[in-house]
Amino acid sequence: MPLADIGLIGLAVMGQNLALNIHDRGYRVAVHNRTTSKTTAFLEGPAAATGITGALSLEELVTQLEPPRKILLMVQAGPAVDELLEQLIPLLDRGDILIDGGNSHYRDTERRCALLKGQNLRFVGCGISGGEEGARHGPALMPGGDAGAWPELRTFLESLAARVEGEPCCRWMGPGGAGHFVKMVHNGIEYGDMQLIAEAYHLLRDGYGCSARRMQEIFQQWNRGPLDSFLMEITGRILGVRDRDGAPLLDKVLDAAAQKGTGSWTVSSALELGVPLTLIAEAVFARSLSALHEERQRAAGKLLAPERYVGTANPDGVGAVHDALYAAKIISYAQGFLLLRAASETFDWNLDFKDIALTWRGGCIIRSVFLDDIARAYEIQPDLENLLLDDFFRQALDRCDEGWRAALRFGSRQAIPLPAMAAGLAFYDGYRCRRLPANLIQAQRDLFGAHRYERLDAARGRFFHSDW
Amino acid sequence: MPLADIGLIGLAVMGQNLALNIHDRGYRVAVHNRTTSKTTAFLEGPAAATGITGALSLEELVTQLEPPRKILLMVQAGPAVDELLEQLIPLLDRGDILIDGGNSHYRDTERRCALLKGQNLRFVGCGISGGEEGARHGPALMPGGDAGAWPELRTFLESLAARVEGEPCCRWMGPGGAGHFVKMVHNGIEYGDMQLIAEAYHLLRDGYGCSARRMQEIFQQWNRGPLDSFLMEITGRILGVRDRDGAPLLDKVLDAAAQKGTGSWTVSSALELGVPLTLIAEAVFARSLSALHEERQRAAGKLLAPERYVGTANPDGVGAVHDALYAAKIISYAQGFLLLRAASETFDWNLDFKDIALTWRGGCIIRSVFLDDIARAYEIQPDLENLLLDDFFRQALDRCDEGWRAALRFGSRQAIPLPAMAAGLAFYDGYRCRRLPANLIQAQRDLFGAHRYERLDAARGRFFHSDW
Repeated sequence: MPLADIGLIGLAVMGQNLALNIHDRGYRVAVHNRTTSKTTAFLEGPAAATGITGALSLEELVTQLEPPRKILLMVQAGPAVDELLEQLIPLLDRGDILIDGGNSHYRDTERRCALLKGQNLRFVGCGISGGEEGARHGPALMPGGDAGAWPELRTFLESLAARVEGEPCCRWMGPGGAGHFVKMVHNGIEYGDMQLIAEAYHLLRDGYGCSARRMQEIFQQWNRGPLDSFLMEITGRILGVRDRDGAPLLDKVLDAAAQKGTGSWTVSSALELGVPLTLIAEAVFARSLSALHEERQRAAGKLLAPERYVGTANPDGVGAVHDALYAAKIISYAQGFLLLRAASETFDWNLDFKDIALTWRGGCIIRSVFLDDIARAYEIQPDLENLLLDDFFRQALDRCDEGWRAALRFGSRQAIPLPAMAAGLAFYDGYRCRRLPANLIQAQRDLFGAHRYERLDAARGRFFHSDW
Repeated sequence: MPLADIGLIGLAVMGQNLALNIHDRGYRVAVHNRTTSKTTAFLEGPAAATGITGALSLEELVTQLEPPRKILLMVQAGPAVDELLEQLIPLLDRGDILIDGGNSHYRDTERRCALLKGQNLRFVGCGISGGEEGARHGPALMPGGDAGAWPELRTFLESLAARVEGEPCCRWMGPGGAGHFVKMVHNGIEYGDMQLIAEAYHLLRDGYGCSARRMQEIFQQWNRGPLDSFLMEITGRILGVRDRDGAPLLDKVLDAAAQKGTGSWTVSSALELGVPLTLIAEAVFARSLSALHEERQRAAGKLLAPERYVGTANPDGVGAVHDALYAAKIISYAQGFLLLRAASETFDWNLDFKDIALTWRGGCIIRSVFLDDIARAYEIQPDLENLLLDDFFRQALDRCDEGWRAALRFGSRQAIPLPAMAAGLAFYDGYRCRRLPANLIQAQRDLFGAHRYERLDAARGRFFHSDW
């Protein structure tokens, strides 16, 4: 039997689908799962008649692989990865490549890269986005880690990935944890996108009293413009789904959102790196607030909102919602790329922002034409300080400015919470503000803690203390 | 020579001032610093003729202390504490008490409590607030950890603390890291308070074109109402300070705020515990944004704001700013106490929220009459689910509702960023919202990730999946 090109460990749905995807691309793949019945079930079920081979132990798996071995780990992020590495490392030979395709924290990936390097092995942390569907038919791939492994993995990984205009959604991100960091920011941006769409839906549903059918039309129409994206598309689709009684199914869904943690990691990383990632933070917190469902019902009975009136969904009103959604989305991505820039500088990753945008264009949840616009902005100006300063986005914001503020006023009048749209506006107005009121904060800190302050009329880095 | 009642290690300013405070309260204190010249300088300088004794080594220090020994550690939070513990533990006897008075992370304190318990020693993590001034004349103290140590420390710690209406601002917080957690939340709330005051100042300064003198009057007037607090008082004071040229000194201070990390810790903890701590998050991020000073200047030249007009600072306009500040402050504290509640439940700390409010009434940066109102709310209803549901605060929010929204509209019209005031409003409207748009988020997650959803017409905990 010929040796396999790729080993894959971990046969949950993502692992199974990736194995099938790899096989479809013409690679020989050998799979292993700790619970061996799962391996057997996969080989006899979805993988039957594919020629995918199985190994009942790690020892068996490594003997089935062409050297230098390439093994894709699709096990749960966290301690499970470390345990697996501990077992695998003694079985491997110099130059073998391990690829962690899970949602590992980038700091774990940094650590594991160093650990394997010390053993003359090569470690790659590869963000994989697109869920089960993407894994099966073409995900977005964000590999990073041991750069020496990239030439040997490139053709393979590119063949698995989604394609947009013939280009694979797979690019080398950088050393160490760069790939998993970029994937984490992707997930954070996904939180932001979803929350913004939810706020637009809230305005249309409760502010303008739109029917599901009307909202479906609106989202479909918006999906033909600059907001064209997978998430807009599925929002339209969801609005069209009816329950058995003929009512919109969406109306029956409990408004308590869950989360799996990578959004929260993104915000924590922003806190650590000192990057104002306000919009995604609001999106993550909005899920937590929504989850307090019973508490909110009790509060609603006690804390009366201003009298509600329902607006008329005329083109101006609906257009304002669109503009608020679009403008805030620009802010969210600008903040996300600020975070990427800060990480790149802090960790010396030399991230390529255009490559990142191109990688996200297909295969993943946030895929959109918007990412083409971002790629274009970084193409024109690779050292662009902030997306907001790109002409295309600057002009878009300028056009949306009035509608954005109008939508927020309208929401406020109706007591409709718009945390992400409002956070976006506060950032926009803050980012272009020559004189923020932080001078008062510095004066207070100097008064009560002798923390000292800088002066507008002195060089940066010179510190003063006053007896206030 | 009689043995000392208390040992104190670490003679930075906080340690020196605490040693003098302890001495003033009638306790015999022996001090030690790793750099021995600092010990000598302290004994010959500020502590001259006090009878405070010094020890040039840890070995010497422990021989000078009355058993069971009580040693207050005032060293920099982080690895320095662990190193010190490693050296100290072998020198101590069963039942000795170590008190960490630094800004340690509560998880470190949890770990150290367990470590010392295993050595038959007692560890107390004691949050100390009030800066140098507080340390010298009466800080707020938030001790927690080994409960068996409290009866032996109580009289001593209470004597050091600030007093309000005769009551010491010092109460036992709970086991493990409870004391340091409460101190961390205190610091987060301090960030929120300062940001809100800064936003009010921004509205008055740039929105209404008020002079420093006029703003000083306004803040002094506000400081006679429900906002009466140390931070309001010093804001008035700061606005009155003139530079050598006669211009307000505050106008010369660079608007780039620094931070030391505990605000960011608070937000990270909220993310971990799933608590929507949005206002403090915005306050922390606002400092990061302010710090991008040069970048903001460049952006200001490119991203033009709507045409600015200056409002008239009539009583209505100024009143709206007041109401926005007061209402958002209520939200900030409500969120802070939500975080405390979540931590108390998660870690089984059994925190007493009234005690926490009473502890913060004096000695610390956030001291205010507002904390009396909070203590009263928890006195009336110890199991109060949320501060917003207390009658006093509920009515206050109701009264402020119109002005709050008006101030935000006014700020938006002027492109004055009000991130914390806006985050507060979004939380308020979200917290009392019966139906948030999170149903759409759950439907999206079910569509692309098969994450399943709950239904409004089914019991909680039953999950559904649809083919959208």
